[in-house]
Amino acid sequence: MVVSTEVVQRWGGGGHGVPVTLQEFLADRGMGAAQPRPALDLAAVDVRPSRIAAEEIAGLGCAYEYDDMVRLRCSGGFSFIDLCRRRWSDSALPAVDVVLLPRSHDDVRRILDAAREKQWAVVPFGGGTSVVDGVDVTDRLTVGVAFWEMNSVLDLDSETGEVRVQPGIGGPELERWLEARGFTWGHIPQSWERATVGGYVATRSAGQTSTGFGRADATVTNLRIAAPIADFDLGRAPGTAAGPDLKQVFLGSEGSFGIITEIGLRVRPLPEKKVYEGLLFPSFVAGKRAFRQLALDRVPADMMRLSDAEESAVNLAMSGLSGITKQAFDRYTALRKVAGGCLAIVGWEGPADVVAARRAHAYTVFRQFGAVRLPATVGRSWEKNRFTAPYLRDDLLDAGYLVETLETANEWSQLDATYKAVHEGLRGALGDPLIGTHLSHIYPTGASLYFTVITPLADDPVAQWKTAKAAATQALVDTDATITHHHSVGRDHAPWLTGEVGESGVDLLRVIKAHVDPQSLMNPGVLGLG
Amino acid sequence: MVVSTEVVQRWGGGGHGVPVTLQEFLADRGMGAAQPRPALDLAAVDVRPSRIAAEEIAGLGCAYEYDDMVRLRCSGGFSFIDLCRRRWSDSALPAVDVVLLPRSHDDVRRILDAAREKQWAVVPFGGGTSVVDGVDVTDRLTVGVAFWEMNSVLDLDSETGEVRVQPGIGGPELERWLEARGFTWGHIPQSWERATVGGYVATRSAGQTSTGFGRADATVTNLRIAAPIADFDLGRAPGTAAGPDLKQVFLGSEGSFGIITEIGLRVRPLPEKKVYEGLLFPSFVAGKRAFRQLALDRVPADMMRLSDAEESAVNLAMSGLSGITKQAFDRYTALRKVAGGCLAIVGWEGPADVVAARRAHAYTVFRQFGAVRLPATVGRSWEKNRFTAPYLRDDLLDAGYLVETLETANEWSQLDATYKAVHEGLRGALGDPLIGTHLSHIYPTGASLYFTVITPLADDPVAQWKTAKAAATQALVDTDATITHHHSVGRDHAPWLTGEVGESGVDLLRVIKAHVDPQSLMNPGVLGLG
Ligand SMILES: Cc1cc2nc3c(=O)[nH]c(=O)nc-3n(C[C@H](O)[C@H](O)[C@H](O)COP(=O)(O)OP(=O)(O)OC[C@H]3O[C@@H](n4cnc5c(N)ncnc54)[C@H](O)[C@@H]3O)c2cc1C
Ligand SMILES: Cc1cc2nc3c(=O)[nH]c(=O)nc-3n(C[C@H](O)[C@H](O)[C@H](O)COP(=O)(O)OP(=O)(O)OC[C@H]3O[C@@H](n4cnc5c(N)ncnc54)[C@H](O)[C@@H]3O)c2cc1C
Repeated sequence: MVVSTEVVQRWGGGGHGVPVTLQEFLADRGMGAAQPRPALDLAAVDVRPSRIAAEEIAGLGCAYEYDDMVRLRCSGGFSFIDLCRRRWSDSALPAVDVVLLPRSHDDVRRILDAAREKQWAVVPFGGGTSVVDGVDVTDRLTVGVAFWEMNSVLDLDSETGEVRVQPGIGGPELERWLEARGFTWGHIPQSWERATVGGYVATRSAGQTSTGFGRADATVTNLRIAAPIADFDLGRAPGTAAGPDLKQVFLGSEGSFGIITEIGLRVRPLPEKKVYEGLLFPSFVAGKRAFRQLALDRVPADMMRLSDAEESAVNLAMSGLSGITKQAFDRYTALRKVAGGCLAIVGWEGPADVVAARRAHAYTVFRQFGAVRLPATVGRSWEKNRFTAPYLRDDLLDAGYLVETLETANEWSQLDATYKAVHEGLRGALGDPLIGTHLSHIYPTGASLYFTVITPLADDPVAQWKTAKAAATQALVDTDATITHHHSVGRDHAPWLTGEVGESGVDLLRVIKAHVDPQSLMNPGVLGLG
Repeated sequence: MVVSTEVVQRWGGGGHGVPVTLQEFLADRGMGAAQPRPALDLAAVDVRPSRIAAEEIAGLGCAYEYDDMVRLRCSGGFSFIDLCRRRWSDSALPAVDVVLLPRSHDDVRRILDAAREKQWAVVPFGGGTSVVDGVDVTDRLTVGVAFWEMNSVLDLDSETGEVRVQPGIGGPELERWLEARGFTWGHIPQSWERATVGGYVATRSAGQTSTGFGRADATVTNLRIAAPIADFDLGRAPGTAAGPDLKQVFLGSEGSFGIITEIGLRVRPLPEKKVYEGLLFPSFVAGKRAFRQLALDRVPADMMRLSDAEESAVNLAMSGLSGITKQAFDRYTALRKVAGGCLAIVGWEGPADVVAARRAHAYTVFRQFGAVRLPATVGRSWEKNRFTAPYLRDDLLDAGYLVETLETANEWSQLDATYKAVHEGLRGALGDPLIGTHLSHIYPTGASLYFTVITPLADDPVAQWKTAKAAATQALVDTDATITHHHSVGRDHAPWLTGEVGESGVDLLRVIKAHVDPQSLMNPGVLGLG
C-alpha cells in the first residue's frame, strides 16, 4: 500500500482553482478578497515515530504497515479541522504506531486479544472520510486497524435480496460486483468514492436516495462484531419481536464498542429506469410542503432535495448559464413566477411502470405547490456532478476560504425554528458567511437540513470554525433537533450527546462500553466514551 | 374498576358453541370426538391473599385495588396456558399483592422509588393480552401497575403527524380520538379490542397492515421511560446518526427495564379510500412469489396475507358456502385452475389515486402468478370478522380442543425450510393436529409465518402444549428463523433467546438490566432476566 501525501491532504484531483463563476459569486457577496493559503509539503512534516516494535505484532499473523504516510492516513478523517492540521500544521503530527491489516474476523479477534494483553488502543479505519473526528489518536500506544485486505463479498442470496460483505469494501467496488449479478445496494453518499461499508454502518450514514431506499443502517440485516469482551452475531430475520434490538446498539457505535467484521445488507434488483430531474419552487416553504405531502401520501420520490434561495443562487450561478441561455432561463422562470426560486432535485428508480406512476403522482403535487420543471440538463448535470463538492473544497481551501458543512434533522413543525437558529448561530460567530442550506432525506414526520458554510479563513481557522460549530450545535439542541442526522458523533459532537439522549442515556452508553470494552481500548474518546 | 370472572377466563361474548361448519371440518379430519371441558367457576377458586398492607402504599398518592378479580386479572396474560390455569386449575391462584393505578409519569416514578426501598417486584400490566407469559407473578412481594388511569392523549402535532399518548390507551379509544381530528395510527393486531399502546411498544407488536405502515415499534418517535435507576427520554428526530439507538433498547424490553410512561407515535391522515379483497392463488408457492415481487417493486399492498391449502380449506369451509353457492364457487375456481388453492387477503389504504395505482400494479403481478379475484364479499367478510378468532378460541376450549398459535419470520430463501420444520415438530409432538399456516407481514427480504394448531385436549393440556411448543421453537432456531416475529419473548420464549442473539447478546441484556434495574424488581423472569 503506497499512500501519497496528496491523498492525506486533499480529496483528490485538484489544482484546478476555484471556478470563475463561484469566484464572481463570492466577490458579489463581498468575499472576493481571501488570501490564498497553499498547503505545506507533508513529506517535510514530522510524523510521530512508532512505539510498537514489529516483534510485538509478528505473532498476529496479519500484514501491517509502518510507513509514515500510511500511519498518518489512518490517524485522521476529512473534516475541515483534520484538513487544517494536515495542510498548515508545523509541529509533528501524531499517528497510530502501526497499521494492522486483518483478512478475516478471526484475524480481528486475534488483534483484539493482543490489544487486551498489551493495553493498545485500537482505532478502526474504514475510508477515513469521517468529518466528526471519528478517526484520531491520543498519546496512548495505538494500533490502527484498516480493512484494505478485508474487502470481499462473502455471499449473495438472490432470492432473499441480501449480500454479505466484509467491512472494507467500498461503494464503487460493491456496486460493480452487484451490478454484474443484477443487483444494487444503492447507498450513495457524497463520500462514496472513498468510504467503506464498515464505516457507513458504524456511523449510520445516509445516502442521497435514503428517502426511497433507507439510510445505511436501515439496510443492515445482520452484523458480526468482534468486541474486546466477546464476538456478537446479531440480526436473524427481516422482522422480530425477540426483545430489545441489540443490532441497534452496534449500528452507530463508531468503533467504540468493537469492530464490525461482517455485514449483511439488503439489496434490490437493478432499476430498469432511473430519472433525476430539476425543478424550481417559488419558495422554500412551498417546496417543503410539497415534499411533506408526498411523504404523507407514501409516494415520495426516491431522492428529494430542496435548496434554499441562497444555495439555489450559488448552484445556478455555478451551472454556468450565461449570455443568451441565462436570459432565456430568467424569462422562463419569471414567466412562471419562480424567478429567484428554490431549486429542487428529485429522482426515481425502479421498474419503468412504477417509476412512471410515482412520478406522475409527484408532479401533480409539485404543480399544486407552484413548481416548474427545469430542462432535463439540470437533473443530468446534478447526476454528473454529484461527487464534485469535496474536490471543490480542496480548491477553496487553497484559495483561502473556510468551507465546512453541518447537518441535522427535525420534525416538520420544528424545521423552521432550527433553520433560523442555526443561521443565527453561524452569523453570530462568523459575521456574514455564505450559508447554503438544503432539505433532504425525507421521512413521514420530518426531514434533514444540511448547511454549507463558506467564509474567508481567519488567522486561526481551527478556532474560527470551532466557535461557529459550537454555536450551531447549541442551536440544534435548543430547538430539539438531532445533533447529527448522518455525520455521526465522533469526538466533535460528543459534548452535546447529553442534549440528545440525556444524562441517563449517556450513562447507559458508558455501562455498555464498560462491559464490551472493559479496558477502554476501542477508539477512545469517540461518543465521549473511554 | 369491577372485573368480572368472565373477562379473566374468556376473551368475551362466548357461549355460542363451535360453528357447525368447523365442527364438520374437524370431524372430516378425524377430530370430531373431543370431550367438552367447561371452565370452573373462578369465583370459587382461592386467590393468594395480598401481603402488602394499604398503609404501605398510602403514601404513593395514587389509586389502588385489592379486589381478587382485579389482582388476578393483572397476574396473567391470554395464552392457551394462561387460560388452562384459569379454567381448570383447582389449587389457589397466585396474584400480585396489589394493583397500583398511577396517573402520570411522576406517579410511576414514586412507585418505582418505593419499590426500590421495599424490594417489591413490579409487573406492568397493559391489556393483559400477552400470549408468552409476559404478565405473571412469582413468590416475591409484587405490585401490579395498571394503566387504566394513564390512558390520555397528551398532544397532537398535526403538521408533523405525531401524537403523544400515555401507555394505557387502547387502540379503539386512540383511533376514535384521532379520527375526530382527521388522523389514524392504524395499528390493528387481532388483540386490538383489549391491548394497549404501552403493551404494543413494550412487545414490538405487529398489526395487520404492518406491511404498509410498519410494526408498532417502527411508528414510535419518542419514548419516556421510568426505570428504577433513572428516567429516560429517547427519540428526538425522524432520523439520526447520534450513536447507538437507545430507544431500541427499551422497545421490546417487555417491562423488564422500566415502565414506558409516554409514547410519541407517527400517525397518518385518515385514508380517503380503503379496499380489502380476497384472491385465490393456485398454490402457496405462487402466492409467496407474487408477494415477494410486490415487495421488491416497493409497491406492496398495505396488508398481504396468504393462507396455505389447509388454512384456506378451513376458512372456505367456515365461510359457510353451501348448496348452489358452493357449486358455483367450485365451478368458478376449477375453471380458473385455482380449485383447492390458497386464499389471500390483500388491502390498500390511502388517497384514492394512490390506492388505484398501487392496486393496478399489484393485480398485474397477481395475474402473472395465476391468482383470481374472489367476489367482493370475501374481503368484506374478512374485515368484518378480523377480530373473531379469540372468541372462537373460547368456544373451542369449552368443546375440548387445544387451540394455540405461534409465529416467526425468516428470509425468503429460508421460509420453506422453516415451514416444513415447524410442521414436523408439531406433528411429532401432537400426532395429526390441524395446522393452518399463513404468510403475512411482508418485508423486502422476507416475511412472517403464523401457525394455528387445533387438536383435541389431552388430560394434561399444559404439558401437551409445552411439548409441542418446545419442538416448534427448536425448529425455528434450527432453521435460523426468529423465535418470535410479534408475540415477543416473555417467559415462554426466554430459554431460546440465546438461539436468537447468542450468549454474548444475552450477557449484554443482563448487563443493561443490572444497570437500569439493579435489584431485579422489574417483571422478573421476562426475557430470562432477573
Ligand atoms: C466529502 C465528504 C462527503 C460526505 N458525505 C456524506 C454523505 O453524503 N452522507 C453521509 O452519511 N456521510 C457523509 N460523509 C461522512 C462520512 O463519509 C461517513 O461518516 C462515512 O460513513 C464514513 O465511512 P468511512 O469508511 O470513511 O469510515 P471512517 O471515516 O474510516 O470511520 C468512521 C467511524 O467508523 C469507525 N469504523 C470504521 N470502520 C469500522 C468497522 N469496520 N468497525 C467498527 N468501526 C468502524 C471508525 O473508527 C470511525 O469512528 C461525508 C464525508 C466527506 C469527507
Ligand atoms: C387473541 C390475541 C390476538 C393477538 N394478536 C396479535 C397480533 O395480531 N399482533 C401482535 O403483535 N400481537 C398479538 N397478540 C399479542 C399481544 O396482543 C401483544 O403482545 C400486545 O402487544 C400486548 O399488549 P397489552 O397491552 O395487552 O400488554 P400486556 O399483555 O399487558 O403486556 C405485555 C408485556 O409488556 C409489558 N408492558 C405492558 N405495558 C407496559 C408499559 N407501559 N411499560 C413497560 N412494559 C409494559 C408487560 O409487563 C408485559 O411483559 C395477540 C394476543 C391475543 C390474546
